[in-house]
Amino acid sequence: MTIGLTPLTVSTLLSRVRSEPPLVQCLTNTVVTNFTANVLLALGAAPAMTDIPGEAGPFARLASGVLINLGTPHAEQRTAMLEAANAANDAGTPWVLDPVAVGSLPVRTALAAELLELRPTAIRANASEIMALAGLGAGGRGVDATDNAEDALPAATLLAQKYGSIVAISGPTDVITDGTSTLRISNGDALLTRVTGGGCALGAVTAAFLAVADGGGTDSRGRLEAAAAATAVYTLTAELAAAQTAGPGSFVPAFLDSLADLTDQDIAAKLVAA
Amino acid sequence: MTIGLTPLTVSTLLSRVRSEPPLVQCLTNTVVTNFTANVLLALGAAPAMTDIPGEAGPFARLASGVLINLGTPHAEQRTAMLEAANAANDAGTPWVLDPVAVGSLPVRTALAAELLELRPTAIRANASEIMALAGLGAGGRGVDATDNAEDALPAATLLAQKYGSIVAISGPTDVITDGTSTLRISNGDALLTRVTGGGCALGAVTAAFLAVADGGGTDSRGRLEAAAAATAVYTLTAELAAAQTAGPGSFVPAFLDSLADLTDQDIAAKLVAA
Amino acid sequence: MTIGLTPLTVSTLLSRVRSEPPLVQCLTNTVVTNFTANVLLALGAAPAMTDIPGEAGPFARLASGVLINLGTPHAEQRTAMLEAANAANDAGTPWVLDPVAVGSLPVRTALAAELLELRPTAIRANASEIMALAGLGAGGRGVDATDNAEDALPAATLLAQKYGSIVAISGPTDVITDGTSTLRISNGDALLTRVTGGGCALGAVTAAFLAVADGGGTDSRGRLEAAAAATAVYTLTAELAAAQTAGPGSFVPAFLDSLADLTDQDIAAKLVAA
Repeated sequence: MTIGLTPLTVSTLLSRVRSEPPLVQCLTNTVVTNFTANVLLALGAAPAMTDIPGEAGPFARLASGVLINLGTPHAEQRTAMLEAANAANDAGTPWVLDPVAVGSLPVRTALAAELLELRPTAIRANASEIMALAGLGAGGRGVDATDNAEDALPAATLLAQKYGSIVAISGPTDVITDGTSTLRISNGDALLTRVTGGGCALGAVTAAFLAVADGGGTDSRGRLEAAAAATAVYTLTAELAAAQTAGPGSFVPAFLDSLADLTDQDIAAKLVAA
Repeated sequence: MTIGLTPLTVSTLLSRVRSEPPLVQCLTNTVVTNFTANVLLALGAAPAMTDIPGEAGPFARLASGVLINLGTPHAEQRTAMLEAANAANDAGTPWVLDPVAVGSLPVRTALAAELLELRPTAIRANASEIMALAGLGAGGRGVDATDNAEDALPAATLLAQKYGSIVAISGPTDVITDGTSTLRISNGDALLTRVTGGGCALGAVTAAFLAVADGGGTDSRGRLEAAAAATAVYTLTAELAAAQTAGPGSFVPAFLDSLADLTDQDIAAKLVAA
Repeated sequence: MTIGLTPLTVSTLLSRVRSEPPLVQCLTNTVVTNFTANVLLALGAAPAMTDIPGEAGPFARLASGVLINLGTPHAEQRTAMLEAANAANDAGTPWVLDPVAVGSLPVRTALAAELLELRPTAIRANASEIMALAGLGAGGRGVDATDNAEDALPAATLLAQKYGSIVAISGPTDVITDGTSTLRISNGDALLTRVTGGGCALGAVTAAFLAVADGGGTDSRGRLEAAAAATAVYTLTAELAAAQTAGPGSFVPAFLDSLADLTDQDIAAKLVAA
């Protein structure tokens, strides 16, 4: 019953992001804030990094989408994250959990468990993190994925079914599931793993796409396609950027330029989805 | 009685920044620290991001200028900001307030009100923020300006007269006033709004120029011209950079290169000031 | 008895970094986290910015090397730094102290003194900071070095002998000593000082090289050569990058590209070491 992601769906959702544009609140780690904001701006979305207690909640009510990334979860930010997730649920704002390095580190692992109970709209992570989150794996070595995306599909399915979340597993082939249907995107370039925040910024892009999902986010197929379209746009852009760059340094500006320039023709010509 | 900003004034002040160079202390948001420091270095100034309690005050006494930007005002930073502003006043160090997203978010709005009472040397913001700060508007949607710079001139004039501050309103035409005289700069490029920190870093550049203002900062015309010259250098650089770039990603390195290279000839040929 | 650093030693250690690769934990300032992580990735190492109490210690036991950089030492990070240094010592993980702006600022100066007693594997700083750390100088003006690297050699020797640390002093000629033998590297480019984090990221690279030092870090000559090789790779890369760039903005991506591409031939052709 699974029907793959079409270029038309990706183009339609990208066009919505560019025309609205969604306001994406990011509570993210100190390493990638700049890159994440610039990725959202290049995409055509509006970033806001409102992550302090007392503001994170009110902002999540106004935002179009929220990213909660556990990369460097300082105490104030942990409070703000719970505040934002609760407010997002209350206001119907879609939110994405990126459980960076969960499993091996105690503070973020406890926080991830707490956030999971708040039922994130989507979870984006690498295979090791998804398996750790589902209690099925031992966790990765820091931010490295030591497991294959496909290997984490049982864990992802379990998470999706238990928490009602879309689960997106990053890897050479990205696997995105709602617990019933599964989409796969085989775009991307290894240079994306040679740049910090390569995965983290995809979490923010996913929040932007969820904000414009079919069915206003209440429809599981709409949310699945939105998360997959985010991954498609992001990894397609990486391919286009890698084709014009000499290394990880020049890849970053080329990635942002390519994201701002991505066309329906690029999507139709390059998308490898199933 | 208003006389516009001349290329000679801009060149003279830029030359002073490059030869001193001023030490600019930045208490700024986590998203733009890196870009802001690199902008100051490309300009020829010396950045220092000293923003913890117990150090922010002592450093503000030694610094040539201080930027206080409210983008992500964590608790420790809020304490440090008040400490820095008080010490700056005490030592005669010029300081710039950038009230990011003030109006709609409670923590920074309360802090901005408190900082305002300390009479910032200059305030740099977009039109929505200036109007919110003056209590005349409802505030913007996060960091987006939803109002026109010229529309915020009454609010800016009120702030300038009440607090003795230079007020610089960013927009396609930048409007800078001391409450009596007003200067306008019509340089710049839309790419500056597609890069995070495009406005924030101008606050730091403004602090660098105030440090070399005519009259040692005690003269209102000297401060007005310094703030306007900062805006002119910054927006002229954006124009030069945009002419050689393919998108928001390549714009950032081109902007820094162009800032380091900006010549008196560029200023004479390109400045659009009134 | 001092024998200079050879290209073969540099190439051998670089090759080890690229093949292992070491996991480098960075507790560093908010300005340079992104650049530091990207430098480590371009080098071929694996960065992790785990810097919160409760996680910093456990992570330092697993990490291959740790960087503790005092650029913006917020309260939680200070706790995490002590936790990481103690755990690193306990587990035999090499760690690098970068005492940014020590001497003139009270909070970090007290912390640096405390960390020094924990006997860092290496200390990397500019001449002013080394002299301040040794109690021999007045400290610099923020992050600027106002003293010559060679002038700081007595202070570095004192620190090396007292704390058993390798001390690396950055400057046009970098001076690296274990308190008995001293190595000097005369590569590099002034553009490295026009980019924020130019020195800070070298601290992280030093941690990566110490993780692959001859003698597993227990041998003083092995550690000295590892720290010097880190400096050599870093400053050689700066030279190669500067040759292809127009200014400080384009220098950053070129630096990362050149670091990822650095060859044994480049090292043999360009290394200026004694």
